[in-house]
Amino acid sequence: MKKIIVLSLGLLGNLLLAQKAIDYVDPFIGTSNFGATNPGAIAPRGMLSISPFNVAFDTTGIKNPLEKDSRWLSNPYVHENTFFTGFTHVNLSGVGCPDLGVIIAMPTMGDLELNHLKYGSTYHDEKAKPGYYALTLDKYNIKAEATADTRAGITRYTFPAGQANLIINLGLGLTNEQGAVIKMNNNQEFQGMRMVGSFCYNNAEGAYPVYFYGKVSIPAEEFGSYKVADNYQGVEAQWMTYNGQTLLKPSFTNEVIGDSIGGFFSYNFKKPTQLELKIGVSYVSIENAKENLMKEIGQKDFNQVVAQTQNAWEDKLSVAEVEGGTLDQKKIFYTGLYHALIHPNILNDINGEFPLHKRVGIKKTNHQRYTVFSLWDTYRNYHSLLSLLYPQDQLDMVNTMLDIYDETGWLPKWELNNTETFTMVGDPATVVLADTYMRGITGFDKKKAYEAMLKGATQMKDNPLRPGIDDYWTYGYVSLNSGVPGPVSTTQEYNIADFAISQFAKVMGDKENQKKFDTQSKTYRKLYDKKWSLLVPKYRNGEWLKDFNPEKGANFEANEGYIEGNAYQYTFMVPQDIRGLIKLMGGNKNFVKNLDAVFEKGQFDMANEPDIAYPYLYNYIKGSEWKTQMRVNDLLNKYFTTQPAGLPGNDDTGVMSAWAMMSMMGFYPTEPAVANYALTAPKFTKIKLRLNPKFFGNDAVEIISNASPENIYIQQIKIDGKKHNSYFITDKELKSAKKIEFILGNQPKK
Amino acid sequence: MKKIIVLSLGLLGNLLLAQKAIDYVDPFIGTSNFGATNPGAIAPRGMLSISPFNVAFDTTGIKNPLEKDSRWLSNPYVHENTFFTGFTHVNLSGVGCPDLGVIIAMPTMGDLELNHLKYGSTYHDEKAKPGYYALTLDKYNIKAEATADTRAGITRYTFPAGQANLIINLGLGLTNEQGAVIKMNNNQEFQGMRMVGSFCYNNAEGAYPVYFYGKVSIPAEEFGSYKVADNYQGVEAQWMTYNGQTLLKPSFTNEVIGDSIGGFFSYNFKKPTQLELKIGVSYVSIENAKENLMKEIGQKDFNQVVAQTQNAWEDKLSVAEVEGGTLDQKKIFYTGLYHALIHPNILNDINGEFPLHKRVGIKKTNHQRYTVFSLWDTYRNYHSLLSLLYPQDQLDMVNTMLDIYDETGWLPKWELNNTETFTMVGDPATVVLADTYMRGITGFDKKKAYEAMLKGATQMKDNPLRPGIDDYWTYGYVSLNSGVPGPVSTTQEYNIADFAISQFAKVMGDKENQKKFDTQSKTYRKLYDKKWSLLVPKYRNGEWLKDFNPEKGANFEANEGYIEGNAYQYTFMVPQDIRGLIKLMGGNKNFVKNLDAVFEKGQFDMANEPDIAYPYLYNYIKGSEWKTQMRVNDLLNKYFTTQPAGLPGNDDTGVMSAWAMMSMMGFYPTEPAVANYALTAPKFTKIKLRLNPKFFGNDAVEIISNASPENIYIQQIKIDGKKHNSYFITDKELKSAKKIEFILGNQPKK
Repeated sequence: MKKIIVLSLGLLGNLLLAQKAIDYVDPFIGTSNFGATNPGAIAPRGMLSISPFNVAFDTTGIKNPLEKDSRWLSNPYVHENTFFTGFTHVNLSGVGCPDLGVIIAMPTMGDLELNHLKYGSTYHDEKAKPGYYALTLDKYNIKAEATADTRAGITRYTFPAGQANLIINLGLGLTNEQGAVIKMNNNQEFQGMRMVGSFCYNNAEGAYPVYFYGKVSIPAEEFGSYKVADNYQGVEAQWMTYNGQTLLKPSFTNEVIGDSIGGFFSYNFKKPTQLELKIGVSYVSIENAKENLMKEIGQKDFNQVVAQTQNAWEDKLSVAEVEGGTLDQKKIFYTGLYHALIHPNILNDINGEFPLHKRVGIKKTNHQRYTVFSLWDTYRNYHSLLSLLYPQDQLDMVNTMLDIYDETGWLPKWELNNTETFTMVGDPATVVLADTYMRGITGFDKKKAYEAMLKGATQMKDNPLRPGIDDYWTYGYVSLNSGVPGPVSTTQEYNIADFAISQFAKVMGDKENQKKFDTQSKTYRKLYDKKWSLLVPKYRNGEWLKDFNPEKGANFEANEGYIEGNAYQYTFMVPQDIRGLIKLMGGNKNFVKNLDAVFEKGQFDMANEPDIAYPYLYNYIKGSEWKTQMRVNDLLNKYFTTQPAGLPGNDDTGVMSAWAMMSMMGFYPTEPAVANYALTAPKFTKIKLRLNPKFFGNDAVEIISNASPENIYIQQIKIDGKKHNSYFITDKELKSAKKIEFILGNQPKK
Repeated sequence: MKKIIVLSLGLLGNLLLAQKAIDYVDPFIGTSNFGATNPGAIAPRGMLSISPFNVAFDTTGIKNPLEKDSRWLSNPYVHENTFFTGFTHVNLSGVGCPDLGVIIAMPTMGDLELNHLKYGSTYHDEKAKPGYYALTLDKYNIKAEATADTRAGITRYTFPAGQANLIINLGLGLTNEQGAVIKMNNNQEFQGMRMVGSFCYNNAEGAYPVYFYGKVSIPAEEFGSYKVADNYQGVEAQWMTYNGQTLLKPSFTNEVIGDSIGGFFSYNFKKPTQLELKIGVSYVSIENAKENLMKEIGQKDFNQVVAQTQNAWEDKLSVAEVEGGTLDQKKIFYTGLYHALIHPNILNDINGEFPLHKRVGIKKTNHQRYTVFSLWDTYRNYHSLLSLLYPQDQLDMVNTMLDIYDETGWLPKWELNNTETFTMVGDPATVVLADTYMRGITGFDKKKAYEAMLKGATQMKDNPLRPGIDDYWTYGYVSLNSGVPGPVSTTQEYNIADFAISQFAKVMGDKENQKKFDTQSKTYRKLYDKKWSLLVPKYRNGEWLKDFNPEKGANFEANEGYIEGNAYQYTFMVPQDIRGLIKLMGGNKNFVKNLDAVFEKGQFDMANEPDIAYPYLYNYIKGSEWKTQMRVNDLLNKYFTTQPAGLPGNDDTGVMSAWAMMSMMGFYPTEPAVANYALTAPKFTKIKLRLNPKFFGNDAVEIISNASPENIYIQQIKIDGKKHNSYFITDKELKSAKKIEFILGNQPKK
């Protein structure tokens, strides 16, 4: 009873005293409903993260909902699962394809059991904060905690008295990728590597090793490695008496290689004992993994690293200070910002080295080298957000993209640990480069950027970025004949990129290309079928797709015209030419009617990117802006909560989170490579954004409002006291202002 | 026509001019009939050997006789096979269990094909000499040659013009052991490791890596690594679109890990081009493999290494100079000596480092550290031969055994790369230690040796060397109740070892143990069943095995009493107590009658060790010695030829070869730890043995005779001109003599 009271006071105390941004972050948000985030410990943009791994279990026994081998699953942790089999040390968060999820550490008690189906445990007292995660294992009564710096982390285990084991399992992992090496150097240290890659089960030939070096805080009484022998069939199996068996190798200090291997440290603790396991990782070498660990963590203990990483988080998160709103809204906001600071993450080691594309060598970088560019997602809002709040991060990311161009000859598309996965469609890096420049971050090689954009847009042969490019320049659209998946979507994406090129051509003073690409950016119009008031797939000869069904393609259903969407979810995705689309549709009224229809027919998909800017498109029609405010408010209320299922779907490396955050702040970027935001009603009474004066003249801007659950409609906007007569604001206006004031009401201003 | 003449003259010339010992060595002898030797290039006692690998093929297609996965096969090469799939770089020769046979290099032409079933080729112009092997591939017209130093070797490929590839295949190997790492450092160098071990498919938990470092002489135009993806089943297979496919990784310079992996170098040769591939190996580390290569071979080219290694072989082989006899007899003799110089081989790297038992660490040795001790085989004759001809090798081997005792607490039994495979039965190292000492090689720690012997013989609990030790000391024999395989054989082996201990106890002045172990060495007598005149399996209560069949157990048939043999093949295997056995059998006449019966009933097995001394036992019966001479002559003629099938069976790391060689020299060791030889008629008119004056006073002894195909019977023996009235000669007599003369005739001297 006493304990419960203390706990309640503790919780209450936390909420009442919460002054720090990190206190509002709940890493469990997004860990269900395919949000695919994990609640593990990570430093801002960390290469390493330590996630609980609970997606591997016997599906014939324990009835957890989501098992990694029995269905496509892209995350090491699912909130509704209950069977913990260890901590993974490299992970992705909020992506749609499985990769990484390896280098597993698992504490157990009693006789050494190396089969995760047998050693796994349910758990209680699960906690997660930025830079910290903890649970207690039911089976063993072991408290297991994790914390992380950028490239190294610590797990801490509080063992009861008795035989305690720490297993390093290199066989288990999130994906089908296999192959590992472990070398137990002695009774305290180990090192090795594990193959990862083949993201989305694509580009498997690009699979590559992640290296690790680890050390336990207490020398083990027994240690060793193990290997699970393959199961042979046929004649050979006759003499394989150890077929499929686990072969224990006590005190073995050479390398052990295989698919199902690992190591262990065992202890006989006379009393409850805390053991720390420190692991450093690298994509370059074991030596670098060790250096990363030694330089980042070295002799620091668990608590020191927690404090240090939480400070780093607070520093990043406090770029925005919000007042007003509900506690849940603050949690949603800061957790959104937290999610936006996980990927892209740092790829280079502490000494600057990183592996070149396709692992053709090693290079040193002179800026932070980033990775995990889910650009089809992130070009839409995420990078614009970074350009505002974290311009140095954004500049380093742009420079990373230009380095990738130098190294590979092409801008990235869906880059992961310096492999190009070629996931999704379009030419999104081009948009990011131009957009970043437009938003005042100009300290990169614009000539090279322009060259890279033009190459992607115009090289007709062997162009990995733009499949269907022949069709695109010949017919203005990628045709059904081309064999390119989602030809309508692809045309739209190329149009958007080409608009960005046109914008950048203007910067470069290249009038010819400015015009050429501006014209080309509108060719989607050829796919507009008046009959449907939609973009419809078309053949080279101008014939439309027979038996066209505009609803086909929703919920990721495969279809002839679109990538992860249907005609409703794509037709308005022409941010470069909204006014053109309005015209195509026959004017404002029809446009609004058609746009309303998307929502009213239930065709709007909050869970995927193509249509996420739709709610803001009402701002383009005078008198309809209140619908933006209404719909955004509805969508925030419906899809974004503080529950594990509190994201509408896959977070897509922070894009959904960015949508919510920006929507709650009252502005959202709707046009590619145009330094502009559409405005809506903020959800807080005060939002103070810290700006980086090194990039921008201003060091802070405040967004003030009388926001409340009822006051969701804009009545008036003032910038530094002066009335603002638009539902858009330029990037320059936003960043030069000291105070932006929204006067809100509970009735729409029609 | 011209070519053929030149070739014939060349061959004839070789034969006529042959003056060197190496010219008589034919490495193809023993490569069929399960001799299990391989014809690959190796330096004397080399850690590395480069063998052609021709035991992997599609058994549904090409109809080769012996495929590694479709039957138990212990050798990387079988002479009657025809499908070459590369050169292996670590191999065993003349053993009965598969191990090693990995690190495969294969040259091909045309498009890169990585499936050995597709890239393999038949061949012609196969040649083998000590330190040199060559063939020409039918499919590609590539001449492929190999040479080796101790820990590093070179393969040389003469490619026609066109696309040429050199594949490093780490997936393919002789056994089911898997797991490898390759790192292609650049267009010329690579390194990595491959798991080996689980000899006889035992002790799989002891599997360990062999490390390698390699360099090609010409930078490749293209290079990279590859991995064959696993074949997944079930749901997972749906998204593994590359299930089972070969994934190419061009220019990939990080490690690739897996079961089916490798690397390649590709060229586009404008004209026929020679390419050299140098590889160093180590059981310690990649760094040591590189150092081994650099220090042994470095900048030397193929021809230099051939010359150097052939000089090393000539130096070793010319310890014996023979005259007279037929060309075939010389070939059999020198090839036998060659086989005796392959194993035991060197384990330590050039810097002295070697891996400790069970890979618990690394150590430096101060003498040559040897490995591959097939002691159940080699204690019978092989080590006595080394003690005579290569006393330094033998001393280093004894010191290695004592080091193993220091490191593991036990003498070795069947040691392989410092793993104990516990293959076969008995306590054979004890015999070797005592025998070596008796033969004048005394420069080892005899106190430690004695301690080690006594421990193996007397520790009643947890004794890995002597299973059934309880029975043995309680009943005098290992009983049928014990569950120990081959209880009769095991008893006999322990008796032999105990006799050796008794002999050594005498040296140590330990009269008590001298008597105790002498008594114990005769307990086999309790298994002598007068009814059969044979040793028969017995229960603890003294009852004999029911339904005893003395013939059961021949040809490796499993049986209740014996290891790889039957009652006939074991009963006379009491070399420590031949006179006792004669008495048991009722005197000389019965003994000879019973011994004759073994041969006459076809129960004598030349292909396995237990009975190989039988032909020499007639020397123990005055007037029957001619039967030794007759039987040895018959057996040499019947089983030892210059054909690939020219060994009676498995060479057992040189034991069969040693039998033939010593038999051809006219002396053979019949008693364990007694510095003695039984004599028979030599096969050469002159045999000059170089002795090591550092160990022995004398530096050479000549064995002279009038040997001929007819003169196979001893008429008289003279030592340094003095008549020798015995059919035995002591080790001391042999080594002090300058000239031993055999006067032979074509009629037995009865």
